[in-house]
Amino acid sequence: MRDLLKQIPNLDKLDGLNTQFSDETLAKSYTTLAERKASSNKIVPSLEEAIRLSGLKDGMTISFHHHFRNGDYIVNMVVDKLAEMGFRDLTLAASSLSDCHAPLIKHIQNGVIRRIETSGLRGKLADAISNGLMDIPVVFRSHGGRACAIDNGTLKIDVAFLGAPSCDPCGNANGYSRDVDGGVMCGSMGYAKCDAQNANKTIILTNHIVQYPNAPFGIPSTDVDYIVEVDEIGDPAGIMSGATRFTKNPKELAIAESAANVIEASGVFKDGFSIQMGSGGASLAVARFLRDKMLAQNITASFALGGITGSIVDLHEEGLIKKILDVQSFDLRAAESLKNNRFHQQISASYYASPADPGSAVNLLDAVVLSALEVDTGFNVNVLTGSDGVIRGAIGGHPDTAFGAALAVIVCPLVRGRIPCVVNKVNTKVTPGKTVDVVVTDYGIAVNPRRWKLRQRLLDAGIPLCTIEELQQKAAQIVGVPEPIQYTDKVVGVVTYRDGSVMDLIYQVKE
Amino acid sequence: MRDLLKQIPNLDKLDGLNTQFSDETLAKSYTTLAERKASSNKIVPSLEEAIRLSGLKDGMTISFHHHFRNGDYIVNMVVDKLAEMGFRDLTLAASSLSDCHAPLIKHIQNGVIRRIETSGLRGKLADAISNGLMDIPVVFRSHGGRACAIDNGTLKIDVAFLGAPSCDPCGNANGYSRDVDGGVMCGSMGYAKCDAQNANKTIILTNHIVQYPNAPFGIPSTDVDYIVEVDEIGDPAGIMSGATRFTKNPKELAIAESAANVIEASGVFKDGFSIQMGSGGASLAVARFLRDKMLAQNITASFALGGITGSIVDLHEEGLIKKILDVQSFDLRAAESLKNNRFHQQISASYYASPADPGSAVNLLDAVVLSALEVDTGFNVNVLTGSDGVIRGAIGGHPDTAFGAALAVIVCPLVRGRIPCVVNKVNTKVTPGKTVDVVVTDYGIAVNPRRWKLRQRLLDAGIPLCTIEELQQKAAQIVGVPEPIQYTDKVVGVVTYRDGSVMDLIYQVKE
Repeated sequence: MRDLLKQIPNLDKLDGLNTQFSDETLAKSYTTLAERKASSNKIVPSLEEAIRLSGLKDGMTISFHHHFRNGDYIVNMVVDKLAEMGFRDLTLAASSLSDCHAPLIKHIQNGVIRRIETSGLRGKLADAISNGLMDIPVVFRSHGGRACAIDNGTLKIDVAFLGAPSCDPCGNANGYSRDVDGGVMCGSMGYAKCDAQNANKTIILTNHIVQYPNAPFGIPSTDVDYIVEVDEIGDPAGIMSGATRFTKNPKELAIAESAANVIEASGVFKDGFSIQMGSGGASLAVARFLRDKMLAQNITASFALGGITGSIVDLHEEGLIKKILDVQSFDLRAAESLKNNRFHQQISASYYASPADPGSAVNLLDAVVLSALEVDTGFNVNVLTGSDGVIRGAIGGHPDTAFGAALAVIVCPLVRGRIPCVVNKVNTKVTPGKTVDVVVTDYGIAVNPRRWKLRQRLLDAGIPLCTIEELQQKAAQIVGVPEPIQYTDKVVGVVTYRDGSVMDLIYQVKE
Repeated sequence: MRDLLKQIPNLDKLDGLNTQFSDETLAKSYTTLAERKASSNKIVPSLEEAIRLSGLKDGMTISFHHHFRNGDYIVNMVVDKLAEMGFRDLTLAASSLSDCHAPLIKHIQNGVIRRIETSGLRGKLADAISNGLMDIPVVFRSHGGRACAIDNGTLKIDVAFLGAPSCDPCGNANGYSRDVDGGVMCGSMGYAKCDAQNANKTIILTNHIVQYPNAPFGIPSTDVDYIVEVDEIGDPAGIMSGATRFTKNPKELAIAESAANVIEASGVFKDGFSIQMGSGGASLAVARFLRDKMLAQNITASFALGGITGSIVDLHEEGLIKKILDVQSFDLRAAESLKNNRFHQQISASYYASPADPGSAVNLLDAVVLSALEVDTGFNVNVLTGSDGVIRGAIGGHPDTAFGAALAVIVCPLVRGRIPCVVNKVNTKVTPGKTVDVVVTDYGIAVNPRRWKLRQRLLDAGIPLCTIEELQQKAAQIVGVPEPIQYTDKVVGVVTYRDGSVMDLIYQVKE
């Protein structure tokens, strides 16, 4: 047979042709039906076995998603196992980390985890890192920046460990289950999709194996190598609340109403507009005020984007928002809508916010409403460090949506307790002021002076405006100017912008 | 600012960190809202401009999908333009080619197209190639083999030209439109998904630009670089028939009834079974006979796979098939179901059939019903060349599904006119006999002797069986043994198996 191949003219021109005659090794062997089915089964008996099969080695990079938020059991379970197996010097690249990940402290001390990349840190782990726990600084990336870094190979994931509320034996995984009501659910698995697609090996951890095909799927079988069945993947109470409630806080309501008025007067509030709202009290309440305006003016939105809450779902089911593009479902109502509403679409972090794609969904946003820990007189925003300099937040999609949206509205109270939220210079610059259009506080609204057209539109609509300096001065009048935070010289965190360049550094706080 | 970076401890350990302080170049510039939206618009004014922007050069590889079947305008439109622009020595890698692509002959003669990779060829182009048109043989791949070759880089696509019945300005493309009824539609774009995902540059050609977001999408915006609006992308009549009708041909009905009886008795016909059926008359009719058996025995299927027809949709809407995994919609009814039925899921060619993934959908098939031009006494099947040795068919998913399915049933008449369909040796071996379980003809049913358990089950069920040799002899009795086909020494086609190895060679026919 081999000689036959010599007859092929221009054989050298057939790039990529496997010039072997087929030995039909792919032909099915003479097994029973049950055995044939088993061969497509990716379930392995234990996490340890999956780790062994993945080829993970010391010094490699492992990844996790944060769709289970503060109810996540996966990160601790996996890193405990890796420590037990003797792994060292790993880089942990999570889409974000929460309070519940405090047990990582001991694994950092023991040398199992050498580096961390994440969107955010909270709780004891964040405290410890702010106090100098790690030798190598944590790299903070926005959701879009992380997706881009994964897509272009800057952040190379060796093994992704992805928790999923349902998975079939071939690896079709999803953030909900169709065969049972209730149970653990997280809705969209948007941040996990990039990891699954690009990791060298992808391991799904699930508490619920379902019949093939688990379609529609969040993660397709083609992106999955091994599946591990575990008793529990997370605490439903920590993963999401039943339904996010509207705030009754009068300060938040006042801010929300102002923000809705700004959107209405800005010029973007037209039939077919698009919007993203955060999950904070004021952001959520904006949806309610916008609803009244939409009904009054007979305006519908073409789509809502981003982290999705029940208040967005209400507008969708009422016909006021045509489509939902969901990278993360913030509450149970959002997760159930993803399961049941066919125009509630699950999207990946790349699709949502990658700076590499001019058609990223964030670039199609008319308006985004974003919260802030601090905003300064240059309109720069900090969502990462507290007034004591300690890390207690996450970049999330903040710089991505502020950049992409035609109108980026920051909502925040002028002061929180004894802490001013409008300051001369933010502790940590996360979102550059160039990309922020309006700051709405309970004491006034300031438009970025670069947006003179927008300023004129708001004035024409009778919305009272002040300058950002006036807001800063007012805050200082009320609570005074805090003493500067005392830092050491040690850098504990590097804040990157969407393109991976360095936006700011976070230093170790002095005890 | 640069000096600040020196403060980062272990800077060299931060692989992939862009050690530039951000100049915020990604910050939005001070443009109007309309201008900001335009920056995410991938529509370019002409096909020529899109080709220029794509960076296509002589000798590169271009790709196309075949979801428009014999109504396709895209291949000819693009290659005409490439010829006009002076390109040469291109490799054309289509998921398949049809009668309508005869104009490629002149582009091959002119040196614009130097090589072809495809699943199949028909009509004048196939005739010309069988008669020695090309210097380099055509490489034939199965749908799964092509997807795998694209995924692993064996088939490297420089520029993909993908026709789409709807697309928004960011590149979310689909095989139907939601904003208009009728118009051109092709349903699933499963074969195009792999090209879009892996091509260096992807160009969508569409006759219908729709509002963002065109969700749910077949091809996501993240996989698209440029969009060209053209007057027409294809002839609806050639793309698909309104609804595939059940055959009234008594021979086909008899074969279909036998095939359904074989499936029923084989052991795979249990609640939750899965099935794929081709679009031929007999295959389609199998669905009708199975329906009666499913109702009688209160059995439902977990999923139907592959190229989907209205007869599968009927069973789905009746509740007899729970989910549909659709890589290609064969008729209008299937396309409309993909648009309207939420458990009718669009899947990629990789998901469908890639041999690289043990969880490929084909591996989960209980039964597949496949047609054949010829089958031989070794159970090898030819679906590519006619009795005159001329290419007139396509590999499609034939070897992929025959391999994957627990039960692969070949349906074909014993003879077609004066041509025997069961022969001693097929002209062209496409699907190896090792993967074929049963051959059902209008003159008898033969089980692959390797499948002794299956043979016993069918006998136990009272199904009369014969040997494949008896079928061959009967065919020879009826129509005689044709004269051997006369070939030259020149190889015109290389038939590859799923793994890219060579399964058979096709020679130039003597005139």
